[in-house]
Amino acid sequence: MRIVIDGMGGDNAPQSNVEGAVNAIKEYGINIVITGDKEILEKEFSKYDFDKEKLEIIHTTEIIENEDKPVKAIRSKKDSSMVVALRLVKEGYADAVISAGNTGALLAGGLFVVGRIKGIDRPCLCPAIPNAKKGMTLIADGGANADCKPRNLVEFAAMSNIYAKKVLGLSNPRVALANVGIEEGKGNDLVKKAYEELKNIDLNFIGNVEARDVINDYTDIIVCDGFTGNILLKSAEGVAISVMGLLKETFLSSTKGKLGAMLLKDDLRKLKSFMDYAEYGGAPLLGVNGGVIKAHGSSDSRAIKNAINQGIKFAKGNVLQDIKDFVVVNKESEE
Amino acid sequence: MRIVIDGMGGDNAPQSNVEGAVNAIKEYGINIVITGDKEILEKEFSKYDFDKEKLEIIHTTEIIENEDKPVKAIRSKKDSSMVVALRLVKEGYADAVISAGNTGALLAGGLFVVGRIKGIDRPCLCPAIPNAKKGMTLIADGGANADCKPRNLVEFAAMSNIYAKKVLGLSNPRVALANVGIEEGKGNDLVKKAYEELKNIDLNFIGNVEARDVINDYTDIIVCDGFTGNILLKSAEGVAISVMGLLKETFLSSTKGKLGAMLLKDDLRKLKSFMDYAEYGGAPLLGVNGGVIKAHGSSDSRAIKNAINQGIKFAKGNVLQDIKDFVVVNKESEE
Repeated sequence: MRIVIDGMGGDNAPQSNVEGAVNAIKEYGINIVITGDKEILEKEFSKYDFDKEKLEIIHTTEIIENEDKPVKAIRSKKDSSMVVALRLVKEGYADAVISAGNTGALLAGGLFVVGRIKGIDRPCLCPAIPNAKKGMTLIADGGANADCKPRNLVEFAAMSNIYAKKVLGLSNPRVALANVGIEEGKGNDLVKKAYEELKNIDLNFIGNVEARDVINDYTDIIVCDGFTGNILLKSAEGVAISVMGLLKETFLSSTKGKLGAMLLKDDLRKLKSFMDYAEYGGAPLLGVNGGVIKAHGSSDSRAIKNAINQGIKFAKGNVLQDIKDFVVVNKESEE
Repeated sequence: MRIVIDGMGGDNAPQSNVEGAVNAIKEYGINIVITGDKEILEKEFSKYDFDKEKLEIIHTTEIIENEDKPVKAIRSKKDSSMVVALRLVKEGYADAVISAGNTGALLAGGLFVVGRIKGIDRPCLCPAIPNAKKGMTLIADGGANADCKPRNLVEFAAMSNIYAKKVLGLSNPRVALANVGIEEGKGNDLVKKAYEELKNIDLNFIGNVEARDVINDYTDIIVCDGFTGNILLKSAEGVAISVMGLLKETFLSSTKGKLGAMLLKDDLRKLKSFMDYAEYGGAPLLGVNGGVIKAHGSSDSRAIKNAINQGIKFAKGNVLQDIKDFVVVNKESEE
């Protein structure tokens, strides 16, 4: 098993990527390939003591920046750490790729470099958000496809269901449609039609979920178009960050508040870490013909190591083959 | 000026409605008409000392419950407190109606009893959510229309802009489109087309806003389809409630936590009240030919009084006439 890391991608590159790779080699005993500026990477790796046999550095000369236009960057920066890493998966040299770089570019690279699985119309990005029961909930699609057809939502459901079983270890993931009410027949045209189709697919479809209940562990997977998924995720994130800010402000506004906050310091840190979704590893891009994991842009070494572990489970669990099997079954049922 | 209150609508009916009406009579000196069971309402009003000349009770025999199917309820319960209240606005006897009852029924009643303003394709519901700068942000549409055309979003923008000026007193409201990124050209087909049209309308259009920034006072008005508006609102609400729950749990889990929480009791109460959007009064239904304000289902007397004040400002500000003027100008610019 080989996992490839886009060495230069992410806000804390290459440091976090290198430290995450070292810790993954130590903890999981796997082989890591890393792409990027060889000199810089070698210097960074020289800080650590680990089994050098398990590391391969592939020199690349370009970097895709956050400001780059995704499709253009993938097409023009052929020797970037991201494109080369994706190509190693495409060519079968590595089993999965981890990148904390430009999200749009990774989505475009998934499509144009790795390629779609035949029979899947649109790949989806599946980030996980923490819920109040200290578990997590997958959003499929979390933002790859702004406009969707009912068929796309059905594929998102099937693919994320496989991922939840094989990578997250859930035996019978609950799958729900993001909607404005829980009753059947609610919502816009897209979700009404998708609801009908989801009833006929072999998965644990529990119906609709309202956005306010997502955090209450109502479901393991939320199916929606990528526009809705983005709104859902970002709205939750914005409020969580703001409430922490307000708390801080409130606590610092009086001596009594400061004293109280001092006593609660450890508890507040726990709360903050719960709400920090960067801790929950990366988001898989499902539906492309290889393992592609998007790590959060601000990933620290722990997030990178967690994302590598996701890549390992993705490969070991044969997620790709299961998705291909779904395509066959789904096609047969349509005929 | 006369404001009519659906006396039997809401979780705390009729108590909160009656107390809110009494306080509005005292504070604003206006005439209140209230619909509902006369005997029950008279008994409730007898608890208060106020100018009885300013109150009129109109007896009704039916109540629309939260469980009732909206359209069916409006059509079959003709003598309900809600339908009769709406009719009083339709007939011009009252200037605006306040209801804390079944939201779907009020939307249906707005359309079928009060009727649309000619030239407005779809009315929208405009709830306000608190932002972290202690102001509020209007969501247009907050849930009335699951499927929208670009034209609808333009109308939502124009109508909520008028409301923000006349009722909220903003001189030049900022209007933004809910989107997955701030750059022009982002998003689904609907928002891309709406963006183009909004550039050509006479209002302070500031472009796109991401859901994570809504709470940061980025804009005064967020324009979106009702499906997106519902997801945005409910996701924020769910997280805010959950975080408060987690805080409570965290604080009660240790002696130190309990001590700290005791010191912070007043501050936490302030924070909770900030996040309680019921405090921010009601949501207007814009685009129907009369003032219709939806108060939160769990409204207390203060929320009802605030909603009555919104109704007064709605009528005094000639919001309806301004919307009709927009229709004329907009039509001319299309010709």
